[in-house]
Amino acid sequence: VNFSVTILGSSSALPTSRRFPAAHLLNADEHFYLIDCGEGTQVQLRKFKIKFGKINHIFLSHLHGDHCFGIFGLLSTFDLLGRKTALHIHAPTGFEKILSFYQEYFSHSPSYDVQYHPIDTKSETIIHEDKKIQVLAISLTHKIPTYGFVFREQAKERKVSKAAIAQYQLGLKDILRIKHGEDYVDENGNIIPNSQLSITPPLPRSYAYITDTVLKESILKHIKDIDLLYHESTFLHKDLKLARETCHTTAKQAAFLALKACARKLLIGHFSSRYPNEEDFLTEAMAVFENTVMVEDGNQFNIEHHK
Amino acid sequence: VNFSVTILGSSSALPTSRRFPAAHLLNADEHFYLIDCGEGTQVQLRKFKIKFGKINHIFLSHLHGDHCFGIFGLLSTFDLLGRKTALHIHAPTGFEKILSFYQEYFSHSPSYDVQYHPIDTKSETIIHEDKKIQVLAISLTHKIPTYGFVFREQAKERKVSKAAIAQYQLGLKDILRIKHGEDYVDENGNIIPNSQLSITPPLPRSYAYITDTVLKESILKHIKDIDLLYHESTFLHKDLKLARETCHTTAKQAAFLALKACARKLLIGHFSSRYPNEEDFLTEAMAVFENTVMVEDGNQFNIEHHK
Repeated sequence: VNFSVTILGSSSALPTSRRFPAAHLLNADEHFYLIDCGEGTQVQLRKFKIKFGKINHIFLSHLHGDHCFGIFGLLSTFDLLGRKTALHIHAPTGFEKILSFYQEYFSHSPSYDVQYHPIDTKSETIIHEDKKIQVLAISLTHKIPTYGFVFREQAKERKVSKAAIAQYQLGLKDILRIKHGEDYVDENGNIIPNSQLSITPPLPRSYAYITDTVLKESILKHIKDIDLLYHESTFLHKDLKLARETCHTTAKQAAFLALKACARKLLIGHFSSRYPNEEDFLTEAMAVFENTVMVEDGNQFNIEHHK
Repeated sequence: VNFSVTILGSSSALPTSRRFPAAHLLNADEHFYLIDCGEGTQVQLRKFKIKFGKINHIFLSHLHGDHCFGIFGLLSTFDLLGRKTALHIHAPTGFEKILSFYQEYFSHSPSYDVQYHPIDTKSETIIHEDKKIQVLAISLTHKIPTYGFVFREQAKERKVSKAAIAQYQLGLKDILRIKHGEDYVDENGNIIPNSQLSITPPLPRSYAYITDTVLKESILKHIKDIDLLYHESTFLHKDLKLARETCHTTAKQAAFLALKACARKLLIGHFSSRYPNEEDFLTEAMAVFENTVMVEDGNQFNIEHHK
């Protein structure tokens, strides 16, 4: 089952000729979730051949233009394509004004319904859950209300072995109990331990998207043992003062957070365009946390189950 | 002296992986004029290495998203780059609401001034003039108020030959009169014809941008003998009915207009994404007007003086 992230845009506020503004796509078993929607997101979705009609949920971290100016074009395109399925947009409060503006001036008879789900918490809250994933929003610290998102696969049930069903002639009720981890007591009173009856499912995979923010160690409890951590890395650590002033993070800080969280892999992006050599970000982060990747637009990261 | 057009985007309403939404850049002697500003225009400006800080005037044909959604990102980027020069936006009435929205939610302490110049005419009007060019807006026929633009170089003065100045010992007043086309009468009463004294300047070069509209022959008088005509060509002529219903033009119609206008060259673009083979647009247009080019994003057209 696919659980992967595609980088659609990875620039900071100023896009470059190689990096579009922020946008990621999460594919959870062919259910598509768009995270941020910088200008040109729809162009990138086409370029990377993503069937974007499958996107039913959009999550916006905050309402700075480089994270949301692509929403107008994407909503228009869905309309032109005759989309029928409702589109759910999860965004900080205030987005209702952006949506109203769009609807008043650019969308007179939309083919589909847009449902806006405001995010408004000072700590964290589960903002979405479906049969594939669960999404936690975590309050970050930026110039305006900003949220990080932790996406987790839904936990799978234990799988009862066919051999056990046959051997013990298990009924539906027995099977349901075993799926939930209970042992089985046969007609002679023998206890058959659950581990002999069912298979432990793989752990739910997880992906966290943390941008734009100062280093925030209080989020550690939410990203502990995360499989894939994307963390902004706008500045090099020599510019820590500037990072703090502008409410951003350095590459070194992002790497420390990954280390403390025992993340399996760290992705860094959102680099300030002031630095001539982007490799410096990678060098700085890898000195602290080796399994770091400096993302490029178009990169796809398949998140595998723990072995 | 440079007078050239760069195609930044050439799709119709739905961008494709190869075509961004509408935007052209006119370079008149290193003065830059942006015409339409579809989503991703700022990315294209970077990609094609255009020093876009030099853009002081933006002309928007109409307020459909595929022609203006890039304005937000571009205005933001100018701000982040610390632009100081005022930016002039010429757009149909109604744009003030789009600008206010942007300024209220995305631009709290802009580094530069945006001056909005509403276009509002049922026929045509000169909407801008500077030392390089003159811009005529022509009312087109689309679903909402839409304008075509004719850009003409300012006429240059006749150049008085150095030999004539020496031979007749011409004073400043004489020179000014000759520049304006007068003959010269020497001290003996001999009439020296202007053609022996001065050089005819090259004709001002011209470029017209006509999109989105039904075929409108009434604009012919404004584009007569135009050097470069860009005309939308959303449909093939077999879909003329659809073109009329959606207020667009066919390739054949665009070519007929170029022929009747005695245009030197026709550019076609804004193709509907419904056609699998774009070459059909070119074949159809060239059957009527041979000097037709089907534009691609990144194309640059240098407009030369008539020989």
